[in-house]
Amino acid sequence: MTDNTAGTAPAKDPHDLPDVSGLVVGVLGGTGDQGRGLAYRFALAGQKVVVGSRSAERARTAAEEVGHGVEGADNAECARRSDVVIVAVPWDGHADTLTALREELAGKLVVDCVNPLGFDKKGAYALVPDEGSAAEQAAALLPDSRVTAAFHHLSAVLLQDPAVERIDTDVMVLGEKRADTDTVQALAALIPGMRGIFAGRLRNAHQVESLVANLISVNRRYKAHAGLRVTDV
Amino acid sequence: MTDNTAGTAPAKDPHDLPDVSGLVVGVLGGTGDQGRGLAYRFALAGQKVVVGSRSAERARTAAEEVGHGVEGADNAECARRSDVVIVAVPWDGHADTLTALREELAGKLVVDCVNPLGFDKKGAYALVPDEGSAAEQAAALLPDSRVTAAFHHLSAVLLQDPAVERIDTDVMVLGEKRADTDTVQALAALIPGMRGIFAGRLRNAHQVESLVANLISVNRRYKAHAGLRVTDV
Repeated sequence: MTDNTAGTAPAKDPHDLPDVSGLVVGVLGGTGDQGRGLAYRFALAGQKVVVGSRSAERARTAAEEVGHGVEGADNAECARRSDVVIVAVPWDGHADTLTALREELAGKLVVDCVNPLGFDKKGAYALVPDEGSAAEQAAALLPDSRVTAAFHHLSAVLLQDPAVERIDTDVMVLGEKRADTDTVQALAALIPGMRGIFAGRLRNAHQVESLVANLISVNRRYKAHAGLRVTDV
Repeated sequence: MTDNTAGTAPAKDPHDLPDVSGLVVGVLGGTGDQGRGLAYRFALAGQKVVVGSRSAERARTAAEEVGHGVEGADNAECARRSDVVIVAVPWDGHADTLTALREELAGKLVVDCVNPLGFDKKGAYALVPDEGSAAEQAAALLPDSRVTAAFHHLSAVLLQDPAVERIDTDVMVLGEKRADTDTVQALAALIPGMRGIFAGRLRNAHQVESLVANLISVNRRYKAHAGLRVTDV
Protein backbone atom coordinates (compact mmCIF):
# COMPACT_ATOMS: atom_id res chain seq x y z
CA MET A 1 0.00 0.00 0.00
CA THR A 2 2.81 2.39 0.74
CA ASP A 3 5.24 1.69 -2.06
CA ASN A 4 3.33 2.88 -5.12
CA THR A 5 5.44 5.34 -7.01
CA ALA A 6 4.28 8.35 -9.00
CA GLY A 7 2.58 7.42 -12.26
CA THR A 8 1.67 3.87 -11.26
CA ALA A 9 -1.65 2.82 -9.81
CA PRO A 10 -1.58 1.74 -6.17
CA ALA A 11 -1.32 -2.02 -5.75
CA LYS A 12 -4.75 -3.55 -5.48
CA ASP A 13 -5.58 -4.84 -2.01
CA PRO A 14 -5.73 -8.65 -2.40
CA HIS A 15 -8.53 -8.77 0.17
CA ASP A 16 -10.70 -6.39 -1.88
CA LEU A 17 -12.98 -8.77 -3.78
CA PRO A 18 -15.89 -8.17 -6.16
CA ASP A 19 -19.60 -8.45 -5.37
CA VAL A 20 -20.67 -11.83 -6.73
CA SER A 21 -24.18 -11.93 -5.31
CA GLY A 22 -25.79 -11.70 -8.76
CA LEU A 23 -23.92 -14.64 -10.27
CA VAL A 24 -25.70 -17.93 -10.92
CA VAL A 25 -23.57 -20.85 -9.71
CA GLY A 26 -23.80 -24.14 -11.58
CA VAL A 27 -22.44 -27.37 -10.14
CA LEU A 28 -21.64 -30.15 -12.60
CA GLY A 29 -21.62 -33.40 -10.68
CA GLY A 30 -24.14 -31.83 -8.38
CA THR A 31 -25.58 -35.17 -7.38
CA GLY A 32 -22.29 -36.33 -5.82
CA ASP A 33 -21.30 -35.61 -2.24
CA GLN A 34 -18.90 -32.77 -2.99
CA GLY A 35 -21.21 -31.12 -5.52
CA ARG A 36 -24.24 -31.45 -3.30
CA GLY A 37 -22.31 -30.01 -0.37
CA LEU A 38 -21.13 -26.99 -2.34
CA ALA A 39 -24.61 -26.42 -3.79
CA TYR A 40 -26.05 -26.49 -0.29
CA ARG A 41 -23.53 -24.00 1.10
CA PHE A 42 -23.89 -21.52 -1.77
CA ALA A 43 -27.67 -21.71 -1.71
CA LEU A 44 -27.63 -21.22 2.06
CA ALA A 45 -25.55 -18.09 1.46
CA GLY A 46 -28.31 -16.76 -0.79
CA GLN A 47 -26.76 -17.57 -4.15
CA LYS A 48 -28.84 -18.86 -7.09
CA VAL A 49 -27.62 -22.43 -7.68
CA VAL A 50 -28.31 -24.96 -10.45
CA VAL A 51 -27.02 -28.51 -10.01
CA GLY A 52 -26.27 -30.49 -13.14
CA SER A 53 -26.15 -34.20 -13.84
CA ARG A 54 -26.21 -36.37 -16.93
CA SER A 55 -29.83 -37.06 -16.03
CA ALA A 56 -32.07 -34.01 -15.56
CA GLU A 57 -34.32 -36.21 -13.46
CA ARG A 58 -31.58 -37.12 -10.99
CA ALA A 59 -30.42 -33.50 -10.89
CA ARG A 60 -33.94 -32.35 -9.99
CA THR A 61 -34.21 -34.95 -7.25
CA ALA A 62 -30.86 -33.87 -5.79
CA ALA A 63 -31.90 -30.20 -6.03
CA GLU A 64 -35.10 -30.90 -4.12
CA GLU A 65 -33.19 -32.76 -1.43
CA VAL A 66 -30.74 -29.88 -1.02
CA GLY A 67 -33.58 -27.35 -0.95
CA HIS A 68 -32.99 -23.62 -0.41
CA GLY A 69 -34.13 -22.81 -3.95
CA VAL A 70 -31.57 -25.01 -5.70
CA GLU A 71 -32.70 -26.13 -9.15
CA GLY A 72 -31.67 -29.18 -11.16
CA ALA A 73 -31.02 -29.62 -14.88
CA ASP A 74 -29.03 -31.76 -17.22
CA ASN A 75 -25.37 -30.76 -17.49
CA ALA A 76 -25.80 -28.75 -20.70
CA GLU A 77 -28.66 -26.67 -19.33
CA CYS A 78 -26.86 -26.25 -16.01
CA ALA A 79 -23.84 -24.84 -17.88
CA ARG A 80 -25.96 -22.56 -20.09
CA ARG A 81 -27.90 -21.08 -17.17
CA SER A 82 -24.86 -20.43 -14.98
CA ASP A 83 -22.27 -17.64 -14.85
CA VAL A 84 -19.82 -19.68 -12.81
CA VAL A 85 -19.66 -23.44 -13.30
CA ILE A 86 -18.08 -25.64 -10.63
CA VAL A 87 -16.80 -28.96 -11.97
CA ALA A 88 -17.31 -31.57 -9.24
CA VAL A 89 -17.54 -34.73 -11.34
CA PRO A 90 -15.54 -37.89 -10.62
CA TRP A 91 -12.07 -37.79 -12.16
CA ASP A 92 -12.79 -40.70 -14.49
CA GLY A 93 -15.64 -38.78 -16.12
CA HIS A 94 -13.81 -35.44 -16.16
CA ALA A 95 -12.49 -35.30 -19.72
CA ASP A 96 -15.65 -36.72 -21.34
CA THR A 97 -17.98 -34.42 -19.42
CA LEU A 98 -16.03 -31.29 -20.30
CA THR A 99 -15.50 -32.26 -23.94
CA ALA A 100 -19.26 -32.64 -24.36
CA LEU A 101 -19.91 -29.21 -22.81
CA ARG A 102 -17.32 -27.14 -24.67
CA GLU A 103 -19.92 -24.95 -26.37
CA GLU A 104 -22.13 -24.46 -23.33
CA LEU A 105 -19.11 -23.54 -21.22
CA ALA A 106 -17.70 -21.03 -23.73
CA GLY A 107 -17.23 -17.65 -22.03
CA LYS A 108 -18.08 -19.06 -18.60
CA LEU A 109 -15.94 -18.98 -15.51
CA VAL A 110 -15.15 -22.63 -14.82
CA VAL A 111 -13.97 -23.73 -11.35
CA ASP A 112 -12.43 -27.17 -11.37
CA CYS A 113 -12.40 -28.89 -7.98
CA VAL A 114 -11.56 -32.41 -9.10
CA ASN A 115 -8.84 -34.40 -7.31
CA PRO A 116 -7.32 -37.14 -9.49
CA LEU A 117 -6.55 -39.87 -6.94
CA GLY A 118 -5.98 -43.58 -6.97
CA PHE A 119 -6.69 -45.88 -4.05
CA ASP A 120 -5.13 -49.16 -2.95
CA LYS A 121 -4.75 -50.99 0.34
CA LYS A 122 -2.14 -48.43 1.49
CA GLY A 123 -4.62 -45.60 1.00
CA ALA A 124 -4.87 -42.77 -1.51
CA TYR A 125 -2.19 -41.60 -3.90
CA ALA A 126 -1.86 -38.93 -6.59
CA LEU A 127 -2.63 -39.69 -10.22
CA VAL A 128 -0.78 -37.53 -12.74
CA PRO A 129 -2.96 -36.42 -15.68
CA ASP A 130 -1.15 -36.05 -19.02
CA GLU A 131 -1.91 -32.33 -18.90
CA GLY A 132 -0.33 -32.03 -15.42
CA SER A 133 -3.53 -31.68 -13.41
CA ALA A 134 -7.30 -31.88 -13.71
CA ALA A 135 -7.42 -28.09 -13.96
CA GLU A 136 -4.91 -28.00 -16.81
CA GLN A 137 -6.87 -30.74 -18.54
CA ALA A 138 -9.99 -28.57 -18.22
CA ALA A 139 -8.09 -25.58 -19.63
CA ALA A 140 -6.89 -27.68 -22.58
CA LEU A 141 -10.38 -29.03 -23.30
CA LEU A 142 -12.15 -25.67 -22.84
CA PRO A 143 -10.12 -23.11 -24.81
CA ASP A 144 -13.03 -20.63 -24.81
CA SER A 145 -13.69 -20.78 -21.06
CA ARG A 146 -11.92 -19.02 -18.16
CA VAL A 147 -10.65 -21.96 -16.14
CA THR A 148 -9.70 -21.74 -12.48
CA ALA A 149 -9.23 -24.37 -9.76
CA ALA A 150 -10.51 -24.26 -6.19
CA PHE A 151 -12.52 -26.03 -3.44
CA HIS A 152 -10.24 -29.10 -3.37
CA HIS A 153 -9.71 -29.49 0.36
CA LEU A 154 -13.23 -29.32 1.71
CA SER A 155 -14.84 -32.16 3.59
CA ALA A 156 -17.99 -33.27 1.78
CA VAL A 157 -19.22 -34.54 5.14
CA LEU A 158 -18.95 -31.10 6.77
CA LEU A 159 -20.33 -29.31 3.69
CA GLN A 160 -23.47 -31.43 3.73
CA ASP A 161 -24.08 -31.43 7.48
CA PRO A 162 -26.77 -28.84 8.34
CA ALA A 163 -25.58 -28.89 11.98
CA VAL A 164 -22.23 -27.44 10.86
CA GLU A 165 -22.70 -23.66 10.67
CA ARG A 166 -19.14 -22.64 9.88
CA ILE A 167 -16.53 -24.32 7.69
CA ASP A 168 -13.31 -22.97 9.21
CA THR A 169 -10.93 -23.53 6.35
CA ASP A 170 -9.30 -21.71 3.47
CA VAL A 171 -9.83 -22.39 -0.21
CA MET A 172 -6.76 -22.21 -2.42
CA VAL A 173 -7.76 -20.55 -5.69
CA LEU A 174 -5.62 -20.97 -8.79
CA GLY A 175 -5.89 -19.37 -12.19
CA GLU A 176 -4.33 -17.20 -14.85
CA LYS A 177 -6.45 -14.04 -14.64
CA ARG A 178 -6.80 -11.98 -11.52
CA ALA A 179 -10.41 -10.97 -12.26
CA ASP A 180 -11.35 -14.65 -12.39
CA THR A 181 -9.51 -15.77 -9.27
CA ASP A 182 -10.90 -12.73 -7.41
CA THR A 183 -14.42 -13.85 -8.36
CA VAL A 184 -13.81 -17.38 -7.10
CA GLN A 185 -12.28 -16.05 -3.90
CA ALA A 186 -15.37 -13.91 -3.38
CA LEU A 187 -17.57 -16.98 -3.85
CA ALA A 188 -15.58 -18.91 -1.25
CA ALA A 189 -15.96 -16.01 1.15
CA LEU A 190 -19.76 -16.34 0.97
CA ILE A 191 -19.54 -19.48 3.10
CA PRO A 192 -19.19 -18.64 6.82
CA GLY A 193 -15.68 -19.44 8.11
CA MET A 194 -14.22 -19.82 4.64
CA ARG A 195 -11.71 -17.60 2.85
CA GLY A 196 -10.54 -17.81 -0.74
CA ILE A 197 -6.77 -17.37 -0.99
CA PHE A 198 -5.00 -16.86 -4.29
CA ALA A 199 -2.42 -19.66 -4.54
CA GLY A 200 -0.85 -19.46 -7.96
CA ARG A 201 -1.25 -20.36 -11.59
CA LEU A 202 -2.81 -23.50 -13.04
CA ARG A 203 0.61 -25.04 -13.63
CA ASN A 204 0.80 -25.37 -9.85
CA ALA A 205 -2.61 -27.05 -9.54
CA HIS A 206 -1.38 -30.66 -9.39
CA GLN A 207 0.01 -30.43 -5.86
CA VAL A 208 -3.13 -28.68 -4.61
CA GLU A 209 -5.35 -31.36 -6.13
CA SER A 210 -3.26 -34.28 -4.94
CA LEU A 211 -2.76 -32.94 -1.42
CA VAL A 212 -6.17 -34.48 -0.79
CA ALA A 213 -4.35 -37.82 -0.57
CA ASN A 214 -2.48 -36.42 2.44
CA LEU A 215 -5.63 -35.06 4.01
CA ILE A 216 -7.15 -38.53 3.69
CA SER A 217 -4.19 -39.86 5.70
CA VAL A 218 -4.72 -37.12 8.27
CA ASN A 219 -8.40 -37.99 8.52
CA ARG A 220 -7.64 -41.64 9.06
CA ARG A 221 -4.98 -41.07 11.71
CA TYR A 222 -6.83 -38.36 13.66
CA LYS A 223 -10.43 -39.37 12.92
CA ALA A 224 -10.92 -35.85 11.60
CA HIS A 225 -12.40 -33.96 8.67
CA ALA A 226 -9.19 -32.08 7.98
CA GLY A 227 -8.95 -28.86 6.00
CA LEU A 228 -6.27 -26.21 5.65
CA ARG A 229 -5.74 -22.67 6.85
CA VAL A 230 -3.09 -20.48 5.28
CA THR A 231 -1.29 -18.67 8.10
CA ASP A 232 0.02 -15.09 8.09
CA VAL A 233 -2.63 -14.03 5.52
CA MET B 1 -10.33 -45.12 22.08
CA THR B 2 -13.69 -46.76 22.57
CA ASP B 3 -13.77 -49.38 19.85
CA ASN B 4 -10.94 -51.67 20.92
CA THR B 5 -12.23 -55.18 21.07
CA ALA B 6 -11.09 -57.95 23.40
CA GLY B 7 -7.63 -59.21 22.56
CA THR B 8 -6.48 -56.14 20.61
CA ALA B 9 -4.53 -53.24 22.05
CA PRO B 10 -6.38 -49.91 22.22
CA ALA B 11 -5.62 -47.58 19.31
CA LYS B 12 -2.67 -45.34 20.15
CA ASP B 13 -3.58 -41.69 20.66
CA PRO B 14 -2.01 -39.90 17.68
CA HIS B 15 -1.27 -36.91 19.93
CA ASP B 16 0.74 -39.06 22.36
CA LEU B 17 4.32 -38.50 21.20
CA PRO B 18 7.69 -39.70 22.55
CA ASP B 19 10.17 -37.71 24.64
CA VAL B 20 12.85 -36.58 22.19
CA SER B 21 14.79 -34.27 24.49
CA GLY B 22 17.86 -36.53 24.48
CA LEU B 23 18.23 -36.73 20.72
CA VAL B 24 21.03 -34.88 18.95
CA VAL B 25 19.68 -33.06 15.89
CA GLY B 26 21.97 -32.65 12.89
CA VAL B 27 21.19 -30.23 10.08
CA LEU B 28 22.86 -30.90 6.73
CA GLY B 29 22.87 -27.67 4.80
CA GLY B 30 22.98 -25.90 8.12
CA THR B 31 24.64 -22.83 6.63
CA GLY B 32 21.63 -22.10 4.38
CA ASP B 33 18.66 -20.03 5.49
CA GLN B 34 16.31 -22.93 6.12
CA GLY B 35 18.93 -25.04 7.90
CA ARG B 36 20.13 -22.14 10.00
CA GLY B 37 16.55 -21.27 10.96
CA LEU B 38 15.75 -24.83 12.03
CA ALA B 39 19.03 -25.12 13.96
CA TYR B 40 18.20 -21.89 15.78
CA ARG B 41 14.70 -23.00 16.73
CA PHE B 42 15.74 -26.44 17.97
CA ALA B 43 18.66 -25.04 19.94
CA LEU B 44 16.39 -22.41 21.45
CA ALA B 45 14.10 -25.24 22.54
CA GLY B 46 17.03 -26.79 24.40
CA GLN B 47 17.98 -29.48 21.89
CA LYS B 48 21.61 -30.37 21.15
CA VAL B 49 22.17 -29.29 17.53
CA VAL B 50 25.06 -29.86 15.11
CA VAL B 51 25.00 -28.01 11.78
CA GLY B 52 26.82 -29.61 8.87
CA SER B 53 28.33 -28.18 5.72
CA ARG B 54 30.78 -29.39 3.10
CA SER B 55 33.27 -27.12 4.85
CA ALA B 56 33.76 -27.67 8.60
CA GLU B 57 35.03 -24.10 8.79
CA ARG B 58 31.86 -22.61 7.33
CA ALA B 59 29.73 -24.88 9.52
CA ARG B 60 31.54 -23.63 12.64
CA THR B 61 31.09 -20.02 11.60
CA ALA B 62 27.36 -20.58 11.04
CA ALA B 63 27.08 -22.40 14.38
CA GLU B 64 28.71 -19.51 16.21
CA GLU B 65 26.38 -17.04 14.52
CA VAL B 66 23.33 -19.09 15.51
CA GLY B 67 24.61 -19.46 19.06
CA HIS B 68 22.63 -21.26 21.81
CA GLY B 69 25.21 -24.06 21.98
CA VAL B 70 24.93 -25.08 18.33
CA GLU B 71 28.09 -26.76 17.03
CA GLY B 72 29.41 -27.00 13.48
CA ALA B 73 31.13 -29.84 11.64
CA ASP B 74 31.60 -31.17 8.14
CA ASN B 75 28.62 -33.12 6.83
CA ALA B 76 30.07 -36.55 7.64
CA GLU B 77 30.82 -35.69 11.26
CA CYS B 78 27.48 -33.93 11.61
CA ALA B 79 25.74 -37.13 10.45
CA ARG B 80 27.83 -39.37 12.70
CA ARG B 81 27.20 -37.29 15.83
CA SER B 82 23.44 -36.95 15.31
CA ASP B 83 20.50 -39.20 16.08
CA VAL B 84 18.14 -37.31 13.78
CA VAL B 85 19.53 -35.71 10.62
CA ILE B 86 17.56 -32.99 8.85
CA VAL B 87 18.41 -32.64 5.16
CA ALA B 88 18.14 -28.96 4.26
CA VAL B 89 20.52 -28.79 1.30
CA PRO B 90 19.63 -27.19 -2.04
CA TRP B 91 17.82 -29.57 -4.37
CA ASP B 92 20.61 -29.56 -6.93
CA GLY B 93 23.05 -30.93 -4.35
CA HIS B 94 20.58 -33.36 -2.79
CA ALA B 95 21.51 -36.63 -4.51
CA ASP B 96 25.27 -36.08 -4.34
CA THR B 97 25.24 -35.06 -0.68
CA LEU B 98 23.20 -38.08 0.39
CA THR B 99 25.14 -40.55 -1.76
CA ALA B 100 28.37 -39.43 -0.10
CA LEU B 101 26.88 -39.90 3.38
CA ARG B 102 25.25 -43.29 2.98
CA GLU B 103 27.46 -44.93 5.60
CA GLU B 104 27.31 -42.12 8.14
CA LEU B 105 23.52 -41.96 7.82
CA ALA B 106 23.02 -45.74 8.21
CA GLY B 107 20.63 -46.40 11.09
CA LYS B 108 19.82 -42.71 11.51
CA LEU B 109 16.45 -41.07 11.35
CA VAL B 110 16.66 -38.81 8.28
CA VAL B 111 14.20 -35.93 7.84
CA ASP B 112 14.14 -34.58 4.31
CA CYS B 113 12.80 -31.04 4.01
CA VAL B 114 13.95 -30.28 0.47
CA ASN B 115 11.53 -28.72 -2.04
CA PRO B 116 12.48 -29.43 -5.67
CA LEU B 117 11.37 -26.24 -7.43
CA GLY B 118 12.17 -24.45 -10.62
CA PHE B 119 11.87 -20.69 -11.12
CA ASP B 120 11.15 -18.60 -14.19
CA LYS B 121 9.64 -15.19 -14.82
CA LYS B 122 6.18 -16.52 -13.94
CA GLY B 123 7.39 -17.63 -10.52
CA ALA B 124 8.05 -21.01 -8.95
CA TYR B 125 6.93 -24.38 -10.26
CA ALA B 126 7.29 -28.01 -9.19
CA LEU B 127 10.12 -30.16 -10.46
CA VAL B 128 9.40 -33.88 -10.58
CA PRO B 129 12.33 -36.05 -9.42
CA ASP B 130 12.68 -39.42 -11.15
CA GLU B 131 11.98 -41.09 -7.80
CA GLY B 132 8.74 -39.08 -7.40
CA SER B 133 9.96 -36.65 -4.74
CA ALA B 134 13.08 -35.54 -2.88
CA ALA B 135 12.05 -37.75 0.03
CA GLU B 136 11.69 -40.83 -2.16
CA GLN B 137 15.06 -40.05 -3.73
CA ALA B 138 16.53 -39.95 -0.22
CA ALA B 139 14.89 -43.26 0.62
CA ALA B 140 16.30 -44.81 -2.57
CA LEU B 141 19.81 -43.50 -1.90
CA LEU B 142 19.80 -44.37 1.81
CA PRO B 143 18.49 -47.94 2.08
CA ASP B 144 19.92 -48.32 5.61
CA SER B 145 18.40 -45.12 7.01
CA ARG B 146 14.87 -44.42 8.28
CA VAL B 147 13.73 -41.70 5.90
CA THR B 148 10.89 -39.28 6.66
CA ALA B 149 9.89 -35.91 5.20
CA ALA B 150 8.86 -32.78 7.09
CA PHE B 151 9.46 -29.05 7.67
CA HIS B 152 8.68 -28.07 4.05
CA HIS B 153 6.32 -25.15 4.59
CA LEU B 154 8.22 -23.03 7.10
CA SER B 155 9.33 -19.51 6.36
CA ALA B 156 13.12 -19.27 6.69
CA VAL B 157 12.61 -15.59 7.43
CA LEU B 158 10.38 -16.27 10.43
CA LEU B 159 12.54 -19.17 11.64
CA GLN B 160 15.63 -16.96 11.75
CA ASP B 161 14.01 -13.86 13.25
CA PRO B 162 14.72 -13.71 17.01
CA ALA B 163 11.84 -11.25 17.42
CA VAL B 164 9.42 -14.01 16.35
CA GLU B 165 8.65 -16.05 19.46
CA ARG B 166 6.01 -18.38 18.04
CA ILE B 167 5.78 -20.03 14.64
CA ASP B 168 2.05 -20.63 14.35
CA THR B 169 1.99 -23.33 11.71
CA ASP B 170 1.75 -27.08 11.34
CA VAL B 171 4.41 -29.38 9.98
CA MET B 172 3.23 -32.21 7.75
CA VAL B 173 5.25 -35.31 8.59
CA LEU B 174 5.47 -38.19 6.13
CA GLY B 175 7.05 -41.58 6.49
CA GLU B 176 6.61 -45.34 6.48
CA LYS B 177 7.10 -46.17 10.17
CA ARG B 178 4.95 -44.78 12.92
CA ALA B 179 7.81 -44.69 15.45
CA ASP B 180 9.80 -42.50 13.09
CA THR B 181 7.03 -40.09 12.16
CA ASP B 182 6.06 -39.85 15.85
CA THR B 183 9.64 -38.81 16.66
CA VAL B 184 9.64 -36.13 13.96
CA GLN B 185 6.25 -34.87 15.12
CA ALA B 186 7.62 -34.61 18.65
CA LEU B 187 10.58 -32.59 17.36
CA ALA B 188 8.25 -30.19 15.55
CA ALA B 189 6.26 -29.76 18.74
CA LEU B 190 9.37 -28.48 20.54
CA ILE B 191 9.05 -25.21 18.64
CA PRO B 192 6.44 -22.90 20.22
CA GLY B 193 3.33 -22.61 18.05
CA MET B 194 4.23 -25.58 15.90
CA ARG B 195 2.59 -28.98 15.66
CA GLY B 196 3.74 -32.05 13.77
CA ILE B 197 0.84 -33.71 11.95
CA PHE B 198 1.16 -37.13 10.34
CA ALA B 199 0.25 -36.65 6.68
CA GLY B 200 0.87 -39.93 4.92
CA ARG B 201 3.50 -42.12 3.33
CA LEU B 202 6.51 -41.03 1.32
CA ARG B 203 4.72 -41.78 -1.95
CA ASN B 204 2.60 -38.74 -1.14
CA ALA B 205 5.58 -36.46 -0.48
CA HIS B 206 5.74 -34.81 -3.91
CA GLN B 207 2.67 -32.66 -3.43
CA VAL B 208 3.78 -31.60 0.05
CA GLU B 209 7.21 -30.59 -1.24
CA SER B 210 5.92 -28.78 -4.31
CA LEU B 211 3.14 -26.95 -2.47
CA VAL B 212 5.89 -24.50 -1.58
CA ALA B 213 5.49 -23.13 -5.12
CA ASN B 214 1.94 -22.17 -4.14
CA LEU B 215 3.02 -20.65 -0.86
CA ILE B 216 5.50 -18.51 -2.80
CA SER B 217 2.56 -17.22 -4.88
CA VAL B 218 0.65 -16.54 -1.67
CA ASN B 219 3.60 -14.66 -0.21
CA ARG B 220 3.93 -12.52 -3.31
CA ARG B 221 0.24 -11.65 -3.52
CA TYR B 222 -0.32 -11.00 0.19
CA LYS B 223 3.17 -9.84 1.19
CA ALA B 224 3.12 -12.61 3.79
CA HIS B 225 5.26 -15.43 5.17
CA ALA B 226 2.57 -18.02 4.64
CA GLY B 227 2.42 -21.35 6.38
CA LEU B 228 -0.31 -23.95 6.85
CA ARG B 229 -2.54 -25.12 9.66
CA VAL B 230 -4.41 -28.39 9.41
CA THR B 231 -7.95 -27.78 10.67
CA ASP B 232 -10.13 -30.14 12.72
CA VAL B 233 -7.03 -31.82 14.23
